[in-house]
This record gives sequence, structure tokens and C-alpha cells, in this order.
Amino acid sequence: MQFELPFRPEHGFDGLYGLEITHVSEYLVRGRVAVRDELKQPDGLVHGGVYATIAESLASVGTALAVMAGGKTAMGLSNHTSFLRPIIQGTIYAQATIKHRGRSTWVWEVEITDDRERLCALTRMTVAVRERPGSPAS
Amino acid sequence: MQFELPFRPEHGFDGLYGLEITHVSEYLVRGRVAVRDELKQPDGLVHGGVYATIAESLASVGTALAVMAGGKTAMGLSNHTSFLRPIIQGTIYAQATIKHRGRSTWVWEVEITDDRERLCALTRMTVAVRERPGSPAS
Amino acid sequence: MQFELPFRPEHGFDGLYGLEITHVSEYLVRGRVAVRDELKQPDGLVHGGVYATIAESLASVGTALAVMAGGKTAMGLSNHTSFLRPIIQGTIYAQATIKHRGRSTWVWEVEITDDRERLCALTRMTVAVRERPGSPAS
Amino acid sequence: MQFELPFRPEHGFDGLYGLEITHVSEYLVRGRVAVRDELKQPDGLVHGGVYATIAESLASVGTALAVMAGGKTAMGLSNHTSFLRPIIQGTIYAQATIKHRGRSTWVWEVEITDDRERLCALTRMTVAVRERPGSPAS
Repeated sequence: MQFELPFRPEHGFDGLYGLEITHVSEYLVRGRVAVRDELKQPDGLVHGGVYATIAESLASVGTALAVMAGGKTAMGLSNHTSFLRPIIQGTIYAQATIKHRGRSTWVWEVEITDDRERLCALTRMTVAVRERPGSPAS
Repeated sequence: MQFELPFRPEHGFDGLYGLEITHVSEYLVRGRVAVRDELKQPDGLVHGGVYATIAESLASVGTALAVMAGGKTAMGLSNHTSFLRPIIQGTIYAQATIKHRGRSTWVWEVEITDDRERLCALTRMTVAVRERPGSPAS
Repeated sequence: MQFELPFRPEHGFDGLYGLEITHVSEYLVRGRVAVRDELKQPDGLVHGGVYATIAESLASVGTALAVMAGGKTAMGLSNHTSFLRPIIQGTIYAQATIKHRGRSTWVWEVEITDDRERLCALTRMTVAVRERPGSPAS
Repeated sequence: MQFELPFRPEHGFDGLYGLEITHVSEYLVRGRVAVRDELKQPDGLVHGGVYATIAESLASVGTALAVMAGGKTAMGLSNHTSFLRPIIQGTIYAQATIKHRGRSTWVWEVEITDDRERLCALTRMTVAVRERPGSPAS
């Protein structure tokens, strides 16, 4: 599996809010997003949904990468994001670490940090591993 | 408190993905988002982060509206979104219902449905009620 | 499927803390537990783990009941319990309501109330539906 | 703060199911529970509520220990436990690690392992720090 990294999704939601993926393996995925006004809620803080979205994307790409060779795909089951400290400027950094690789579900822990490496949000992502529609076993 | 509804936030993240708020009270908040390709993940489904974001916005606006008269503000503490059924087209509907109004935390249950009124995602939002920076009691 | 209700599990953890199940269907399960000192944490409140445990039992029995005829079994995947109001005496009432019945996961919402019908805890239980070990399809 | 460790709570719920606390600090708390039939669900696995309860106790004691000198107390706000692998015998080991120490909420990550050091459950505990009833500031 080869990646020219960092890469920036051009299409879809990841492109809209500006995710850049800087590292991908089935154990660890890293990404970052530049803060801009379009990512904020009315009080001027980065919207909590941005953190949840980044976490979802990193955990999903890490799982999908590992299971697609076996004709399977990854679908988010549950995203639990805790908001610990607001971010108002700079860059949002995210790192997803695998906690559990089961046959039917994978669990990732995603840490969101700011420019000063302070923990700002924490996500537990549960990703379902399913047959890909159209694969022989589905 | 008066609202000319529906209204559509023009700025910030809610404006970027296209939230339209159609009902607001401190007990119930409703909104909707038109599906478009920019809201999808690579498999062509609406990105899970979109559901989490909508839920966060509705619960926050409902809480903020009720507590701001007392000089307080609302900040998301935790967003737990379960993904039940994918959406690929049409409109995303969301309804936030208050479950608990405590002194320091409010809990909302948010149901996300599709055009056929099927439950597609379910969020529990915990919102902290805090002194507003600059208010006399903060 | 027949139940002589209410029934009280005699063995295992449910027997130890004293669960009594008063209603079971695949849509709704109800139970109750009498508060006693052995269920409390050091400050004299009912231990949060008691609520989480009751919710887990009700959602699991409701799912298992519905899927066992098809040779399947139910296993808890995730239990997210929010604590809203302490209970110190009387009876703990719990009601599990089905929110989603998928092929591989079921989601229940469990409300815990006290003698005055106040909402004291709220659980989202995600239950996996799996082949029963030893069944033909497993 | 002195502890003669390991110690075993004699009273309350922790005494009933058999928690033994083997390490306590405001950053790290460890405990263990011997598996016995009274801790199991009907299929013969340790009941998921046991893991949730252990996690709740460790995170609460770690928080309470740190804040009680300042006249405050700890109350569980939210317990989200994911079940990764069943345990049927031996000893349940738990380790709570602090992730965030805020003014009003602390967040702990609790890992539950078995005799072979495999990760069996994972809990995120959010603990509220509140004025102790009767303290001058409450």
C-alpha cells in the first residue's frame, strides 16, 4: 500500500472543511486542519463537529486501508467525542491510535491537539468491518 | 425570544455545510440539511461527522437560548453519535429533545432521520452551562 | 415465548445486586432493584455502576429473546450511561426501549427513574447480534 | 495522603463484587477483581456491568483523592464502556489513566485486561468536580 503523503482529499466533506492526512497505517493515522472562520461556531471557537468529523475520517481510512484487500469495507458505528479545551486559531492536529482489531469491529482512540500540543478533544471511534456490497461473500 | 424561522446561519461551520434551523425552544430544536456531494465520505454516503455536527448545533442553540438571559453560555462537553442507517440523497432532518436540565449540564437526545422518516443516527449531547466570560459572576 | 413475570434472576450478577424483571418484549423491557447499602458508593449514593449494569441486563435480555429463535445470541458492544440525579433510597426503576434493530447491532435507550419518576440516569446500549457458538451457521 | 495498599473496600457495592485497589494517585489508579460465578451474566461471561463499575470506582477515587483537600467532591457524569473481549475466569485487572484535569470535569481512560494482558474493555469516565455539600463555598 503506497501513499504519497501528506495528501489532501479534494472531494466530499473532508475536502470541504480541509482535512490533510499526513500519516496512514492500520495502527496509526495522523491528520491536520487549518483553523479558519468557516470552521467556527457562533462564539468564535472551532465547532465541536469539526473534531468529531476529523476523528471519524482518520479512523475510517485506517480501518478501510487494512480490510479492503480482503474484500471488506469500513463503516462508522459510533463516534463519542469529548470536548476538553477550545481552539480558536492555528492548526488542529489529530492522531488516531488503534485500540482493538476485532473480526467485526475496530476501536480507535483519537486525540485532537492544538499548536501547543495541548489535548483539546478525545474521540472513541467504533468502526464496523462489513462485506463490501458486490463482493463474493456479501 | 423571537425567531423568524426557518433561518439559515450564514457564517461559520453551520453556514459551510448548510444547516437550516426550523424550530427552536429550550425543549425542542429542529433543523435540516440538504444532501449534496460536498457532505459525503469517499463511499458516497453522508459523512458521519455531518450528523454529529448537526446534533451539536441544535443542542447548543437550544441550551444557549435558555441560559443566556441569566448571563450564562453553553459549551459542548460530549457528543456521542451512533450511526444506524446511511443517507445518500434528499434531506437530513434532525430533532433535538431535552432529557435533563441540570444546573451545570444539560442532556439532549437528537434523532436524525431521512426523507422516509427512518432513524439514521442518534446523538446524546451533553452541554455544559457556564458563566459567560465577562459576566459579573464569572 | 412465555414469561411468568415478575421474575428475579437467582444466579450470577443480576442475582447478586437484586434485579427483578417485570416486563420483557423485543421492544420494551422493564425492571427494578430495591436500594440497599450494599449498592452504594462511599458517599452514600447508589453506585453509578448499578445503573449501567441494570441497563446492560435489560437491553441484553430483550435482544437475546428476539434473536435466539434464529440461532443467534446477543453480546453487549457498548454501554454509555449518563448520571443525572443521585438515588439514595427506595426503588430503582428501569425501562429499555428499542431504538434500532439492525442485522448486526441493536440499539436501546434505557431510562432509570426513582420513586418519584424523576429521570436519574440514561443509557445507550449497543448490542451485537452474533451467531451462537455451536449453531450451524457459526 | 497515605494508603496501605492493596486495600479492599468492605462496604457498599465495591465490597459486594469484590474490588481490590492496588494503586492510587491523581494520575493513575489500579485495581483488580477475582472472577467468580456471582459476577457473570447468563451465558457464563463476566457481566459487562462489572467492567463499567470497576472503571467508575477507580476514576472516582482518583479524582476524589485529589480534590477533597480543596473542599470538593467527585461525582460521575458519564461512563462509556466498550466491550472488546469476554472474560470467563481468572482475574480482572483495571488501570485508570488521567486524560484531562479541568476545573469542573476530569476525564479518565480505563483499560480492563485479563490474566494474559489482553484488552477486554475500555471505559471513558467523565467525573464532575463539585463543591462538597456543607463546605463553605457550596
